[in-house]
Amino acid sequence: MAQNNIAVIGLSVMGSNLALNIADNGYKVSVYNRTTSVMEEMVKKFPHENIEGKATLKELVESLAKPRKFIIMVKAGAAVDAVIEQLLEYVEEGDIIIDGGNSFFKDTQRRYDYLLEKNIHFFGVGISGGEEGARRGPALMPGGNEETYKEIQPILEDIAAKVNDIPCCSYTSTGGAGHYVKMVHNGIEYGDMQLISEAYTILKHLGGFTNDELVEIFDKWNKEDLESYLIEITSNIFKVKDDQGEGYLVDKILDKSGQKGTGKWTTEQAVDLGIDISIISNSLNARYMSALKDERVKAEKEFGGKSYKLVEDRNHLVKIVRDSLFTAKLVSYAQGFKLLQAAEKEYNWSFDYAQIAKIFRGGCIIQAKLLQNIIEAYTNNPQLDNLIFDPFFKETIKENQSSLRETIILAINNALPVPSLSGALNYLDVYTTANSGANLIQAQRDYFGAHTFERTDKDGSFHYDWVGNNDK
Amino acid sequence: MAQNNIAVIGLSVMGSNLALNIADNGYKVSVYNRTTSVMEEMVKKFPHENIEGKATLKELVESLAKPRKFIIMVKAGAAVDAVIEQLLEYVEEGDIIIDGGNSFFKDTQRRYDYLLEKNIHFFGVGISGGEEGARRGPALMPGGNEETYKEIQPILEDIAAKVNDIPCCSYTSTGGAGHYVKMVHNGIEYGDMQLISEAYTILKHLGGFTNDELVEIFDKWNKEDLESYLIEITSNIFKVKDDQGEGYLVDKILDKSGQKGTGKWTTEQAVDLGIDISIISNSLNARYMSALKDERVKAEKEFGGKSYKLVEDRNHLVKIVRDSLFTAKLVSYAQGFKLLQAAEKEYNWSFDYAQIAKIFRGGCIIQAKLLQNIIEAYTNNPQLDNLIFDPFFKETIKENQSSLRETIILAINNALPVPSLSGALNYLDVYTTANSGANLIQAQRDYFGAHTFERTDKDGSFHYDWVGNNDK
Repeated sequence: MAQNNIAVIGLSVMGSNLALNIADNGYKVSVYNRTTSVMEEMVKKFPHENIEGKATLKELVESLAKPRKFIIMVKAGAAVDAVIEQLLEYVEEGDIIIDGGNSFFKDTQRRYDYLLEKNIHFFGVGISGGEEGARRGPALMPGGNEETYKEIQPILEDIAAKVNDIPCCSYTSTGGAGHYVKMVHNGIEYGDMQLISEAYTILKHLGGFTNDELVEIFDKWNKEDLESYLIEITSNIFKVKDDQGEGYLVDKILDKSGQKGTGKWTTEQAVDLGIDISIISNSLNARYMSALKDERVKAEKEFGGKSYKLVEDRNHLVKIVRDSLFTAKLVSYAQGFKLLQAAEKEYNWSFDYAQIAKIFRGGCIIQAKLLQNIIEAYTNNPQLDNLIFDPFFKETIKENQSSLRETIILAINNALPVPSLSGALNYLDVYTTANSGANLIQAQRDYFGAHTFERTDKDGSFHYDWVGNNDK
Repeated sequence: MAQNNIAVIGLSVMGSNLALNIADNGYKVSVYNRTTSVMEEMVKKFPHENIEGKATLKELVESLAKPRKFIIMVKAGAAVDAVIEQLLEYVEEGDIIIDGGNSFFKDTQRRYDYLLEKNIHFFGVGISGGEEGARRGPALMPGGNEETYKEIQPILEDIAAKVNDIPCCSYTSTGGAGHYVKMVHNGIEYGDMQLISEAYTILKHLGGFTNDELVEIFDKWNKEDLESYLIEITSNIFKVKDDQGEGYLVDKILDKSGQKGTGKWTTEQAVDLGIDISIISNSLNARYMSALKDERVKAEKEFGGKSYKLVEDRNHLVKIVRDSLFTAKLVSYAQGFKLLQAAEKEYNWSFDYAQIAKIFRGGCIIQAKLLQNIIEAYTNNPQLDNLIFDPFFKETIKENQSSLRETIILAINNALPVPSLSGALNYLDVYTTANSGANLIQAQRDYFGAHTFERTDKDGSFHYDWVGNNDK
């Protein structure tokens, strides 16, 4: 009867895998899918003593111990609202509905507010790690009511990825906070991927490294500061021979990259909240530009083609590219956490940044050794204005920034595009410039629009009659 | 009686100036303000034979010949909707309501659709040129029904700025198109201003030029390719002595630049429609970063301060900075028009790009000699994929790009931030790269998310079992 611990609604691969993961951890799971045959197939294909298929929502609800817990694993958008409405026919006050999909955080916030009025607890849980993560241990970013979180904490921590036995799961804040953190995670992922891609093109075109040599380079990097899932899989990618012809598969892949919208959300949020996340934004733009293959082919021809010049000291190239990649990565994480800070203020959340960094250490795409440094940075100083003020960040950037300059200059001289590496350097140079050229911009704005300006030597807001003076 | 040609609603400086401008052109104008005393003061302060103040909307409406024409000049947002609702009590089918404020184009589109149902014609007219422009001749970007446009065309063309007797006013397209064009205008303005600011800091810090010398440089530039309103006022700004102390005013202005949201709209639109407008986006970010004055002061200190090294050949510096500024400006306009192209598709508009460039030639902030080249480019080839394929653009970029590279490298070596110049160069280098590193990004996406990829040698969508292969 009403004894199962939790229900999973929506049994596509992600939902099925999550249900199996929960069941493996000793919880009794009721599973349901709108199309009953999908549920029947899942239960048949993956028989599990802890899993029970339910053909109707009514049966599903009746199978659960109170307070009932539901994880919705359906397509983000209207489908989530539809499931919630259907569930509302059966649930009682105090029950808990969890959305584990890739929902936009504003939708999650809206649903949270809507269900709060009915005394139903709603959690938006960002789940990262794809199908494999869902099955073996994802990174989990739950957002919702902190008190009620205790009800779902054991299950979430049990199914999450572990790093040194610590679960990659931590309460974020209320409402849409969990999905927000997931969104920023994905933005950082875009940035990391673009930075690696830029390092790759430099090594390939200016170092002349073969795929075999790239495997060695990335393997070595993966044993050092850059250790991360993305560096690891990049090395693995370079190993793969084309299964449909000569050579390596990576060289046969068309350079048009797709995207599913989360990098776009992150950039839109940054624009909205006034935060410069140049590395992420530039990586999004790089994806957009990659789609214009025909125009790029035409443009390369019309502008005279490329002629990359190989460097003489290949070892030095590897060193400066490594330094550049790591430095840019530090800056990118600093920007991502800056965005989280702005969101914390804007949406009245309360973030523990060390905890957020802990979530990212395993199970997800951006898992990396560097996260340990971020945890330490925020543990030492939870009020850090910007990660780059942390001693480890600062010293590393100081030490490596000449490599970053050298790498970018090399790229510029070869007309080899490095938008995200450049974005990192410009951010550093802008941020470390006490006196910028924005005084001129303020003068211009006051000249043509009477927008006023502040002065360096006294308080107040000033306007000068530039036009009148000019006419004199 | 019912004989006046047009009404102006909202008599702040912009509304008053526009009314006076219309009246100067021989049209009978009825003016109204919600607070009657504002109207009374305006009529008293600027007595004009063609202007009649009206204390109530009813009187205002009754004073107009049919079809009645109203220009709303109130604060963008809810106030516009409120005025429309009030007008709806009095207007008849066929009457024309014009919003001349800085409305967001989606609001304009919504109002257009709403009023279309009632057979009231709605126009969103982007007005650029500030208070002075409104009074003496602004640039006008009308959007709405093309057939009805004929009813308001004479007035708009008469009050618009003129360049060689051609009015800076041209029908754009339906619905929100006029305000969209205005939004892009403002985005380009942000980019132009940031580029000038970067040129200024390079000349100042790396060339050691004084304000007096900068006046000369900018005056000279204003007689060449760079001729434009913004270059002109920049030169004027450098002339101004501080009226409250020693030295020059520009050096006393605090480098925190404000913004009123239109650059933000432009960037958000670009992100949404998938267009890289790196120069505009980076200039928006530069404004955001300028606001972090305290953090920048701290960061400069903690990262060891700046030590700009003066160049030896100052004339050469002026040359490469000029080339860089002009080239980046070409790229920025190319990006802005690329955004317009994307919007044309997205919102089912029909743009005449040569006409849009004509609007910008006078009355507005971005008026510049370069617009003539854009007009010619689109007149020769209205289907141009990208302005940089136009012969003038292409040859200029080819000729100047080595200067752009040299300037940026100089800035990089001095840790002097040039985000928008860099944005221009990276865009060029990305756009002219036929084979980018996006193949690796597609491999990564397929590796961790089974997102599939295309191949260079055959059609179709492919997935490879990277993980399985790796485990072997």
